[in-house]
Amino acid sequence: MPKKNFSQSNFFLIFSYKGYLIRRLAVDLIWIAIPTTILCTIHELGHVNIESNFTLPGLMGAILGILLVFRNNTAYDRWWEARKVLGGLVNTSRNYALQINQLLPDSKEKTEILNLIAAFPYVLKEHLRSGVIYIEIEFVGEEISNELKKWEHVPNGINQLIIKRLKTVYERGEITDFQYLKLIENSDELIDIMGKCERIHKTPMPQSHNYLLKAYIYIYAIIMPLGLIENLEWWTIPAVIIIYYVAMSIVTISEEIEDPFGKDPNDLPVDNIANNIYKNIQEIINK
Amino acid sequence: MPKKNFSQSNFFLIFSYKGYLIRRLAVDLIWIAIPTTILCTIHELGHVNIESNFTLPGLMGAILGILLVFRNNTAYDRWWEARKVLGGLVNTSRNYALQINQLLPDSKEKTEILNLIAAFPYVLKEHLRSGVIYIEIEFVGEEISNELKKWEHVPNGINQLIIKRLKTVYERGEITDFQYLKLIENSDELIDIMGKCERIHKTPMPQSHNYLLKAYIYIYAIIMPLGLIENLEWWTIPAVIIIYYVAMSIVTISEEIEDPFGKDPNDLPVDNIANNIYKNIQEIINK
Amino acid sequence: MPKKNFSQSNFFLIFSYKGYLIRRLAVDLIWIAIPTTILCTIHELGHVNIESNFTLPGLMGAILGILLVFRNNTAYDRWWEARKVLGGLVNTSRNYALQINQLLPDSKEKTEILNLIAAFPYVLKEHLRSGVIYIEIEFVGEEISNELKKWEHVPNGINQLIIKRLKTVYERGEITDFQYLKLIENSDELIDIMGKCERIHKTPMPQSHNYLLKAYIYIYAIIMPLGLIENLEWWTIPAVIIIYYVAMSIVTISEEIEDPFGKDPNDLPVDNIANNIYKNIQEIINK
Amino acid sequence: MPKKNFSQSNFFLIFSYKGYLIRRLAVDLIWIAIPTTILCTIHELGHVNIESNFTLPGLMGAILGILLVFRNNTAYDRWWEARKVLGGLVNTSRNYALQINQLLPDSKEKTEILNLIAAFPYVLKEHLRSGVIYIEIEFVGEEISNELKKWEHVPNGINQLIIKRLKTVYERGEITDFQYLKLIENSDELIDIMGKCERIHKTPMPQSHNYLLKAYIYIYAIIMPLGLIENLEWWTIPAVIIIYYVAMSIVTISEEIEDPFGKDPNDLPVDNIANNIYKNIQEIINK
Amino acid sequence: MPKKNFSQSNFFLIFSYKGYLIRRLAVDLIWIAIPTTILCTIHELGHVNIESNFTLPGLMGAILGILLVFRNNTAYDRWWEARKVLGGLVNTSRNYALQINQLLPDSKEKTEILNLIAAFPYVLKEHLRSGVIYIEIEFVGEEISNELKKWEHVPNGINQLIIKRLKTVYERGEITDFQYLKLIENSDELIDIMGKCERIHKTPMPQSHNYLLKAYIYIYAIIMPLGLIENLEWWTIPAVIIIYYVAMSIVTISEEIEDPFGKDPNDLPVDNIANNIYKNIQEIINK
Repeated sequence: MPKKNFSQSNFFLIFSYKGYLIRRLAVDLIWIAIPTTILCTIHELGHVNIESNFTLPGLMGAILGILLVFRNNTAYDRWWEARKVLGGLVNTSRNYALQINQLLPDSKEKTEILNLIAAFPYVLKEHLRSGVIYIEIEFVGEEISNELKKWEHVPNGINQLIIKRLKTVYERGEITDFQYLKLIENSDELIDIMGKCERIHKTPMPQSHNYLLKAYIYIYAIIMPLGLIENLEWWTIPAVIIIYYVAMSIVTISEEIEDPFGKDPNDLPVDNIANNIYKNIQEIINK
Repeated sequence: MPKKNFSQSNFFLIFSYKGYLIRRLAVDLIWIAIPTTILCTIHELGHVNIESNFTLPGLMGAILGILLVFRNNTAYDRWWEARKVLGGLVNTSRNYALQINQLLPDSKEKTEILNLIAAFPYVLKEHLRSGVIYIEIEFVGEEISNELKKWEHVPNGINQLIIKRLKTVYERGEITDFQYLKLIENSDELIDIMGKCERIHKTPMPQSHNYLLKAYIYIYAIIMPLGLIENLEWWTIPAVIIIYYVAMSIVTISEEIEDPFGKDPNDLPVDNIANNIYKNIQEIINK
Repeated sequence: MPKKNFSQSNFFLIFSYKGYLIRRLAVDLIWIAIPTTILCTIHELGHVNIESNFTLPGLMGAILGILLVFRNNTAYDRWWEARKVLGGLVNTSRNYALQINQLLPDSKEKTEILNLIAAFPYVLKEHLRSGVIYIEIEFVGEEISNELKKWEHVPNGINQLIIKRLKTVYERGEITDFQYLKLIENSDELIDIMGKCERIHKTPMPQSHNYLLKAYIYIYAIIMPLGLIENLEWWTIPAVIIIYYVAMSIVTISEEIEDPFGKDPNDLPVDNIANNIYKNIQEIINK
Repeated sequence: MPKKNFSQSNFFLIFSYKGYLIRRLAVDLIWIAIPTTILCTIHELGHVNIESNFTLPGLMGAILGILLVFRNNTAYDRWWEARKVLGGLVNTSRNYALQINQLLPDSKEKTEILNLIAAFPYVLKEHLRSGVIYIEIEFVGEEISNELKKWEHVPNGINQLIIKRLKTVYERGEITDFQYLKLIENSDELIDIMGKCERIHKTPMPQSHNYLLKAYIYIYAIIMPLGLIENLEWWTIPAVIIIYYVAMSIVTISEEIEDPFGKDPNDLPVDNIANNIYKNIQEIINK
Repeated sequence: MPKKNFSQSNFFLIFSYKGYLIRRLAVDLIWIAIPTTILCTIHELGHVNIESNFTLPGLMGAILGILLVFRNNTAYDRWWEARKVLGGLVNTSRNYALQINQLLPDSKEKTEILNLIAAFPYVLKEHLRSGVIYIEIEFVGEEISNELKKWEHVPNGINQLIIKRLKTVYERGEITDFQYLKLIENSDELIDIMGKCERIHKTPMPQSHNYLLKAYIYIYAIIMPLGLIENLEWWTIPAVIIIYYVAMSIVTISEEIEDPFGKDPNDLPVDNIANNIYKNIQEIINK
């Protein structure tokens, strides 16, 4: 079931989309164009004979290909792992709410726990960005809101509050020993999910890979004209720019998607996911 | 154990099958043929000398290859993951039915739960398409059908109804505390499976990869003739079309299989799976 | 620890082994040889100048390489996954038998359950082929044999019979509530393993990949001579056949190993595994 | 943290190491050198013009590359999976010993169980080789040693003996029902680990891949000189030998590491692991 | 969300970073430069005609590419697996502390257990390096510190101490049988994590791969000039050095990241992770 048919109308989309990347790479493209232009000028005006060698760019290109494949795949793997973790967040939240709804008799604690579960995704996503936005979770009530503000690590705080309420319910004898520990397991899973998000968010690629790849693309763009200039003459400049742009766009997209919790066009729809969980839990409570 | 022997009779099949893709790509092929034809006409009739350069298409081709491999593999991985999830649906449903059948004494609730388990795959598959088809699950009875119609998220609804009935049985003292929680774990798994299907269905590939790949194939198809026209002359046009077609067919198939819950020829046999589960559960009940 | 040292004597083995594939691909090789021979004849006898172009086969070849890698890896992944699942079958059967042997007091039910566990692998393997061979499992006794014959899905039937007997033992109070559910978990695992085997067996590769790959190999074999004929003349025919044969042998092996439960030379030793499980369980019972 | 700095002194190591592989491949290298030498002699002395064609070896080389990557990766994957399984053996043994040490009151059974756990890795490793070496596990005492000698599948025997002793302890009422089943779970895990080792040990690669790869390397080494002889003349012989050697060394290493439980230089340090587990368990017992 | 925008200012960073690798590879680069320089000198001054052959380096280069991809990917996979294991350490520690804090009544044991959990990451990281630094975990108190010093395998010691204290609490009747075993499961997980770290730390790559890859890069760097010298003349020397440097930098980085528990610039931030766990546990205790 293809999401979109690739019809003729796509061509406009493609170029409008590329505009976004062109803006990001504009400065680089100038830096790449300058040495190529100088080389072309020397070659054309000064009638200097430049050694044309196809083998050297070919070897460099092969190693570059290895590194580009590696960069692209690892970035995508993180993106997809992040998506799986968020999918786990959806499932765990639904299960937790369903179980709480079934096992606990109606009480102030029950309502609060269900609200806290619904608040967790909102808190987690902003914890991974710049800081919790309390306006998003005002449905938990002012009292809980104030308690959470005391925590530096707010998602941990939410779990602590849930567990405290579960303990109260348990001590009132409304759930059995076994049910109590079963319910807490869901909190363990929420902490697990949180930890995985933090891992993906906080661990950049090994810096060496990042720097080397960029350095090699740049060196390659400097060497490449030597193999093209005899044939293409002035056309070498757009040719080099296209190759540089294509290679660099893979690097740039990889950098965007490897930490997918932000608000870039390629990031995951974290806000939608939080809203959906909220809606699902509301539906569970109301029926 | 090969499914089909590749004998001479396959050749007809191959071309009939390709017809399906040719229809999908027809408009694109025209768009690609036009610039190539113009170029050929200029070259042949105007006797203009076009710079032939083999290196440039080669470099572009390598990067294109990287992106095609990536596109193909990630799409297949989703398809296969979806297949695994559906396999899990088969297993969980069978187990759930077997356990309910064993542990619960005969009662109205038992029959209803078994029906609800059998209905879940039908509901899930249409939830991933356009909306539940109640005619498929009329075996659950009108009463339950009406209850389900109140839910926006029907698969969640089914689980809620199952858990409610289990609670009734538990409160009547027909199963122990421990058995009750064991049985509910199966519902957790069904929710888990549902969440995974939703994840695969709702998360398209990062848009940037999609657009860039198509854009690069197009750019490549424009540049490619420069390297072929000196040798192939008018034969450049079919050559370019073949290469474009082969590359684009990989992209098109990838788009089809990355969301495999639809009714395309490459999608998973979701309807058959639902029917098989239904039959298996019937056999378990009757014996 | 290499299984076999690759000494000079291997060369005979290699060619005898290839004979097996050559028989499978014989018809195809004729179909490929005909157009190439016609082309060569035109070229050699008619002194027609054929445009030699190295780039076109090179581009096609790269895309073909992508698809061959993909085909080969996915087929092997299934084969290895199937091997893991069968390994799981060995472990689960051993564990199940060990636990039954330890926890249950001697009784008719205990013997029957142990026999049923030993029968499961035999039943499963033939269920994946053409139908259960009752002579293989006659050790379960005639009574159980007849009961199993009533089932369409025999592996499901075996599990049902095991669980029934466990229930009898439980109701006699010979095992606790907790032990009962622990033991049943093993049956869940057997059903899980069965489901995984069925998934691998029943899901062929997306048809589109299969057809396209074969079509492209064929098209490639037609185009390839254009790039070779100027240099190789009549030697083009064996050259094309070798390349075609090598590519097609990868496809053919992939088709064989992707459904590894049959009796092809590359399939898994399913019968041996079933026999080993039987022997292990006998040893557990007797000591 | 690199294990070894690659300094100039490594060069000697490299060549000494390669000596090991050269011995293994010596016979093959002669077989490869003969046809190449004949070809060179004909070319040089007979002044026969040999058709030089670069494309054919290139195509063959690409497919060969695919198969070499595949061979290398699957062999390494097994090696690493085996390492993970052995890591699991370390963990499970430690945990098992820690729990036994904590939960069981001092008794003859406790000591015996701890000894049996420590003996399991020794027994497993030799079970995967040629047969258990009883001298290695004499610390279990003569009585148990004799009991084990009755078993054909000794690792299974050890587990059976452990479970028997646990049952005795349980029947004396020294551990609860729940603790008993928790402890047995560790034995299940040991059986699981054993099963995984057996799977890796007993399942060679699909024979077809193995034979084809070697056959293609040989065919390739025969065809390759055609593309080199015009330029390299007598130097063709060392060139072909180097290429053949490099390709074959990958195959040879893959064969060594895909079954890593032996005593080859590339195999896993199975004996050290068994010794470490023994030492860890001694430390746990003594403190 | 890209970590860093690749702007023009990056160019300085790239070269400063490369300086780090250049130092590491300096000796090698000299060894590579000498034979190339000799070859160039012979060619230029002696007017000796050197056979230029493009095919041979191309074939070698392809196989080298295979090995470089393999080396790079396996090293990164270990690095990322290590990161996941450390992420698991964070989660397990948090969960353990949360559960201890909730389930145990205030007592000397509770405080000690929480301290021991917080000490575990510090002990683990130095256990993987050269030996535990007791100054880092002085918050556990002198008494426990002295007890730990008796252990050779200190992380095992910490777990033993935790379990001992849990047993005391259990025997005082402050937690139930079920809670006791649930809590101990966390210790099992800590031992599991420790085992995984040890596996990654102690298992170098198969030595054969390591040596062969380096040997092939060196051989390749010796052969490569033959294909370049006709065109590039004296420029062959920098060309060979660049290619050698690029290939070797991948190997060097791979060696650094495959054992990521050290203090190299590319290693994981193990110290920060230990500090964060400490802070999180403090926050859990204080609220």
